[in-house]
Amino acid sequence: MPIYTDAKTQRLCNFAAGPAVLPQAVLEKARDDLLNYAGSGMSVLEMSHRSAQFEDIINRAEADLRALYNIPANYKVMFLQGGANLQFGMIPMNLRAKDVPIDVVLTGNWAKAAIKEAKKSGPVNIAATTESSNFNRIPDQSELKLDPKAAYLYFTANETIQGVEWRTEPVPPAGVPLVCDASSDFVSRPLDISKYGLLYAGAQKNAGPAGVAVVILREDLLARVPEGLVSILDYKVMADNKSLYNTPPCFSIYIVGLVARWLLDLGGLAEVAKRNQAKADVIYSVIDGEPGFFKGHAEKGCRSRMNLTFRLPSEDLEKKFIKDAAAEGLLELKGHRSVGGLRASLYNAQPMSAVEALAGFMKDFQKKNG
Amino acid sequence: MPIYTDAKTQRLCNFAAGPAVLPQAVLEKARDDLLNYAGSGMSVLEMSHRSAQFEDIINRAEADLRALYNIPANYKVMFLQGGANLQFGMIPMNLRAKDVPIDVVLTGNWAKAAIKEAKKSGPVNIAATTESSNFNRIPDQSELKLDPKAAYLYFTANETIQGVEWRTEPVPPAGVPLVCDASSDFVSRPLDISKYGLLYAGAQKNAGPAGVAVVILREDLLARVPEGLVSILDYKVMADNKSLYNTPPCFSIYIVGLVARWLLDLGGLAEVAKRNQAKADVIYSVIDGEPGFFKGHAEKGCRSRMNLTFRLPSEDLEKKFIKDAAAEGLLELKGHRSVGGLRASLYNAQPMSAVEALAGFMKDFQKKNG
Repeated sequence: MPIYTDAKTQRLCNFAAGPAVLPQAVLEKARDDLLNYAGSGMSVLEMSHRSAQFEDIINRAEADLRALYNIPANYKVMFLQGGANLQFGMIPMNLRAKDVPIDVVLTGNWAKAAIKEAKKSGPVNIAATTESSNFNRIPDQSELKLDPKAAYLYFTANETIQGVEWRTEPVPPAGVPLVCDASSDFVSRPLDISKYGLLYAGAQKNAGPAGVAVVILREDLLARVPEGLVSILDYKVMADNKSLYNTPPCFSIYIVGLVARWLLDLGGLAEVAKRNQAKADVIYSVIDGEPGFFKGHAEKGCRSRMNLTFRLPSEDLEKKFIKDAAAEGLLELKGHRSVGGLRASLYNAQPMSAVEALAGFMKDFQKKNG
Repeated sequence: MPIYTDAKTQRLCNFAAGPAVLPQAVLEKARDDLLNYAGSGMSVLEMSHRSAQFEDIINRAEADLRALYNIPANYKVMFLQGGANLQFGMIPMNLRAKDVPIDVVLTGNWAKAAIKEAKKSGPVNIAATTESSNFNRIPDQSELKLDPKAAYLYFTANETIQGVEWRTEPVPPAGVPLVCDASSDFVSRPLDISKYGLLYAGAQKNAGPAGVAVVILREDLLARVPEGLVSILDYKVMADNKSLYNTPPCFSIYIVGLVARWLLDLGGLAEVAKRNQAKADVIYSVIDGEPGFFKGHAEKGCRSRMNLTFRLPSEDLEKKFIKDAAAEGLLELKGHRSVGGLRASLYNAQPMSAVEALAGFMKDFQKKNG
């Protein structure tokens, strides 16, 4: 019999890297309101984005994200379509003048993807790279070759595929804005937003379902936006219209709002960070427990608390691990092909019961196969 | 007591122009599966877009759309983010070579919005315009000034705001592809897709919730896509990856799939078109019933069966109409500010019971105020 996180609904343990597990309480609320939201007589799926009810939904989602991160008043919060991939294009399109280079720290697949798109509109400097060790660590500040004339310094807070994370932000030269892809550790711990020029996240890991990206932008940077961009690719248009220039991804925004409210009700990001640390500790202590069987991909000081990547002694054992785990209801543990091995994603909504079930399975698997 | 379309769930009559009413059976299915989709142990909101289950969802959605429209094999079907607004930018970006003009028929706000974005990347010819009569009609083929060297001929199948629709497509010069914004009459009636180079629709009117656009593209046109576009703005990338280059808007695609299946189960587009005609007839016959009170905006031969626009003798009466209707559970009847007056949207999912309730209310309102 598989391990359920909830016996009644027979929900299994979902360790996917994104889209990923959501809080059950959020799903229950969405389910209960699915045919008739708050007495409106209709579903959020059917609701005009110009209606007072939807304005309330989007305004509350923004207010709750602002409360979570204590976002300063001089930052815009936008809900955009196209995920992180569209931001890879939009950020340079909007924030750099023609031919001005940007600095990027190359820490894994997602930084690499951002570089690929940014190069299409101008020069990119690699401020540092950890590619030679297959992205198993985050560079020190001292390793960064920074251009004081760069349009911005770009980094990826957490590399979902490699399982490495920045413990503290890189420090850009004075006057160079810091731009961050926070897709896979968004709202997982407190941050000082005032250090950032722009911080964005595809929602489908920690903050909601696929289909919406949250972009937090310091408003003075809107002065950089050039004329002539396609309207919905223009931060100024989207910010001026409070994400309602065109029809936004209403239902995804609604779920992000429910998740933000759930996080506030838990006690906010400091409390959430504590829980995330505790969950990661459970798995890393198994990995470190008896050397020679599990092998973590990331250096210890850079280990992600969101995406835990590890290998087994052989690929055959890894295949068996994935298969046996799935049979017990522990799903989506396969690592990305570029790292191989295994990956357990322990986002905010991952219940400790699932984490403990995985730890138990790992120990048991080691006993049987070690 | 308000008029419900369903007493148990107290769903009201939603005449919004989009996002808009969805089939109750679709919402019930989504609700029932919201915590655990088809025994997967997770919600579609949480499901990896690389999972076998989601691949099945997106493949079936595509197959059912192909079945509905009988889409030829040499057409790609893509599920993209950014709605119609992003298509306004992507279509010229992808399908015209530098400085080649495109022909657009200017029939209302949505054609105008498409022109605004297309002009950012090159020249646009207005093949015809009906602006002088406030877009109350569709031009005849004989009125179109067409350029045989245009990159494509673009038109808006149904103008949501003005409530006018093309009964048959404009005919482009030989070799010039026809491109159509079908956002507000998508899957509302049969079409011969082979007449089109590209046909697209934001889903949130007839086909699903906000957050996804369906793009149907004749594959030879992919040869036009220039190098260097941002990946997710590149039709070739998105088509080659079957809409899974990046994380797609999974839940919106799932709902589009459920709607497509619902339409097939009803009997397909010929049957749906018959029902849509019958619903529109109910309201237009009230409008035409006793002259001098209700006044349709569109000329009779161009009347939309999706968005029915009409005026009352005074703006005060229009305000009263909207208020009194809402009190009876007939919601979202306010016209767009550029036309004024009233608008009832009768998309596929609009139940005849809601249409009859509106007709009854209109007659009653006329009796009391006429």
